Amino acid sequence: MIQAGERLLLVSSKREYYVRAGEGTLSTDLGILDLAALVGAAYGSVVATHLGHEFTVRRPRATDFFAHAARTGAPMLPKDIGMVIAYTGMNKNDLVLDAGTGSGIAAIYFGGIARTVVTCEVRPEFATRAEKNIRDAGLENVEVRACDVLEVEGEERFDIVHFDLPVTAEHVARARALLVPGGYLACYTPFIEGMSAAYDAAATLFSEVHTYECMEREMTRGKRGTRPSTRVGHSGYITIARR
Amino acid sequence: MIQAGERLLLVSSKREYYVRAGEGTLSTDLGILDLAALVGAAYGSVVATHLGHEFTVRRPRATDFFAHAARTGAPMLPKDIGMVIAYTGMNKNDLVLDAGTGSGIAAIYFGGIARTVVTCEVRPEFATRAEKNIRDAGLENVEVRACDVLEVEGEERFDIVHFDLPVTAEHVARARALLVPGGYLACYTPFIEGMSAAYDAAATLFSEVHTYECMEREMTRGKRGTRPSTRVGHSGYITIARR
Amino acid sequence: MIQAGERLLLVSSKREYYVRAGEGTLSTDLGILDLAALVGAAYGSVVATHLGHEFTVRRPRATDFFAHAARTGAPMLPKDIGMVIAYTGMNKNDLVLDAGTGSGIAAIYFGGIARTVVTCEVRPEFATRAEKNIRDAGLENVEVRACDVLEVEGEERFDIVHFDLPVTAEHVARARALLVPGGYLACYTPFIEGMSAAYDAAATLFSEVHTYECMEREMTRGKRGTRPSTRVGHSGYITIARR
Amino acid sequence: MIQAGERLLLVSSKREYYVRAGEGTLSTDLGILDLAALVGAAYGSVVATHLGHEFTVRRPRATDFFAHAARTGAPMLPKDIGMVIAYTGMNKNDLVLDAGTGSGIAAIYFGGIARTVVTCEVRPEFATRAEKNIRDAGLENVEVRACDVLEVEGEERFDIVHFDLPVTAEHVARARALLVPGGYLACYTPFIEGMSAAYDAAATLFSEVHTYECMEREMTRGKRGTRPSTRVGHSGYITIARR
Repeated sequence: MIQAGERLLLVSSKREYYVRAGEGTLSTDLGILDLAALVGAAYGSVVATHLGHEFTVRRPRATDFFAHAARTGAPMLPKDIGMVIAYTGMNKNDLVLDAGTGSGIAAIYFGGIARTVVTCEVRPEFATRAEKNIRDAGLENVEVRACDVLEVEGEERFDIVHFDLPVTAEHVARARALLVPGGYLACYTPFIEGMSAAYDAAATLFSEVHTYECMEREMTRGKRGTRPSTRVGHSGYITIARR
Repeated sequence: MIQAGERLLLVSSKREYYVRAGEGTLSTDLGILDLAALVGAAYGSVVATHLGHEFTVRRPRATDFFAHAARTGAPMLPKDIGMVIAYTGMNKNDLVLDAGTGSGIAAIYFGGIARTVVTCEVRPEFATRAEKNIRDAGLENVEVRACDVLEVEGEERFDIVHFDLPVTAEHVARARALLVPGGYLACYTPFIEGMSAAYDAAATLFSEVHTYECMEREMTRGKRGTRPSTRVGHSGYITIARR
Repeated sequence: MIQAGERLLLVSSKREYYVRAGEGTLSTDLGILDLAALVGAAYGSVVATHLGHEFTVRRPRATDFFAHAARTGAPMLPKDIGMVIAYTGMNKNDLVLDAGTGSGIAAIYFGGIARTVVTCEVRPEFATRAEKNIRDAGLENVEVRACDVLEVEGEERFDIVHFDLPVTAEHVARARALLVPGGYLACYTPFIEGMSAAYDAAATLFSEVHTYECMEREMTRGKRGTRPSTRVGHSGYITIARR
Repeated sequence: MIQAGERLLLVSSKREYYVRAGEGTLSTDLGILDLAALVGAAYGSVVATHLGHEFTVRRPRATDFFAHAARTGAPMLPKDIGMVIAYTGMNKNDLVLDAGTGSGIAAIYFGGIARTVVTCEVRPEFATRAEKNIRDAGLENVEVRACDVLEVEGEERFDIVHFDLPVTAEHVARARALLVPGGYLACYTPFIEGMSAAYDAAATLFSEVHTYECMEREMTRGKRGTRPSTRVGHSGYITIARR
């Protein structure tokens, strides 16, 4: 049952809107829709504009928050978030520390998987924005802290520490202190110099240290044939290390 | 508290063993270890061989099952499993259908994340092997069915359907029938012809159809400098489609 | 000594102009330059606009024709032209047949290397444009024919046949008939289907058949660090076969 | 007409031998062949072993020297040699300086294209080996110097300088002094640190400075379908700069 204030997607064959149930109206070129009427409806139900155009009500997934949530910078891409999840084996038993929250997209992905996520963001306005995005995602198990990750004290040790920030040797040493034995550190670094710093610091304190780049190519199929997309994006390097 | 029969890792700075608590002994070049003594111990405790060499007891993660579980063929690689998780936004509320179980590695990853996973494998001996691997991973929420996925009836609709098998138009149509609106189909296909078949079938029945290739490169740092690994593996294409 | 009608580059630290010696004037924001005065000058000499801005006179290279010559479509990229040259071992003794002339860029590259190049273009207006570009490049050893390559009769056999057109089995068979033993066929095909057709036809008639893709990435160095460019372009597949 | 001492390929449908005309015999599992009988024969002629197995006599191309010439280390790959040729627009008018001769493979490629190549190798035994390979390739226009490239004096300026050695700022400055205006420097460096050194030095002295990586993938077609090879090799970075 949809609650007031909850984020939803309204989807038709030609349009997609990211709305909040409960307040005001949505004006589209296909008519006006009463958002208050969404409260109490079921996911998957169909609503219509005053012109009779129908939309299906959909509960957003992490992929939708990646597409629609307000951003304070360029978030990590799904391919890289997927690398972190896969190379750490992230699962529902995990306590995860995420630092460099940014818009909170990675935290939303991790929060949907892990038991609990603590995410640290030093820039207060970014932390505020991320907090809103994470609340929109309906995640109760993600705690946003507007602080430097170096200040985090671990009453309980973390299973995974993830950094999306300029990683220093101090960060790596702090991660080691906060991790359970067998736990993973994952560092996302866009530049080779940052990757090298993370790798070198991890190589002295961790085992199983590897740095990966995932070059993602979309394949296209059209009338003229099949081929890789003419664009491949570099995003960053993922350094994985095990305590 | 470690149970009899449970899978564990015994880790020292130089060795790693994948053992089962409770029965028999482990003979290594560093001495003999009594596996019965592991029962009742805590994760992270230290045990010693009769020669005094110490090992830390570690609870295996999905990454460890990828490395150590018995295989009936080449499993999907973590990078590709990560792509499926990220592009579907897999999370703990999800009911997932996985078909083409193989050794059960993807099912172990998915089982650690999703609410429930149903995984289908037509080859009975593969299903038996996968069942053992999945039980070793301690996952209660993964059901292995030795059947053709086309026979699956959905009392409850799935949030995600994942195929690691030769995908036909019939598979794609069946996936559509089994998915909730907004749910995702993910097809893993090693060859271009298989990718094309999956893509074309999905393009007529699904929206947001995209095929990706993740080319993973490891970066190496040595005395002579930093460079990409001299090997990059192709594994397969991931086609993602949304109902 | 520069001839009337010859193509030249006028280069200063901030500007580069692709001009023709002998006729008219070049008007720039840095002043007007008399192009007639270039005739008889030496490559590397310095000329000045009426405002005193100096330009060095440079003889264009193939890279400059790639950048400046008028195009009738997207030409092959240098990386792919380089693959053809390297995988065929193109050299100054070679008689080369090039088909699918397009703007003539590949023919300009090949003409600077090979003894003689015959290049075929079925579209007369493209052939005319290519003829002009090739004359501008000062190449006497490149013959443009406005014809279908299937009509070419080889009094003398070719060392290399290069196709940048939709390759059929008939093209491949014709190439075999026109090549010396030990000579190379090189097919450039943007799409997988075209690549497959070229590969399959070559596999039955040639030896040493290989298809390559060259994924070129530019590396960038800036204040924030070093990283691959965020863009990698797919262009096409190069199939190499030896008679 | 084949000369005594000349390198040849003897090719049948199942075998390929890299021989020298004139002396001794070639013993194969298909019979014995008199190499003296090759002198005076024409390229393309057919010779037979004493058991009647026939071989076609083929004049080797640069691709054959890459495959067969004796190596003193890992030579540059054809894809990278092709990048250098294409991004410099190397042609038959060019005077080329090549340094870090190694086995002489790049010099053989360049010698088949350029007017004259001077190639420098500091290790005398490498220079001797390269000299033999280059003589085998029948190239009269390639001069091997057993010296440090920094000692080269340019009576005549070079059109292209190519380095396959650990590039320092001194090398780059020397290249600038030796090049004609509009000429190109090309540096091949396997590691990121070497690439960065070359790039940074070139950026202060040259214009149009770009570093490229060519990731080559072979495409395979088999009974199960079409896919990229499971191996992609990194080789090195090519930095191109224009004087």
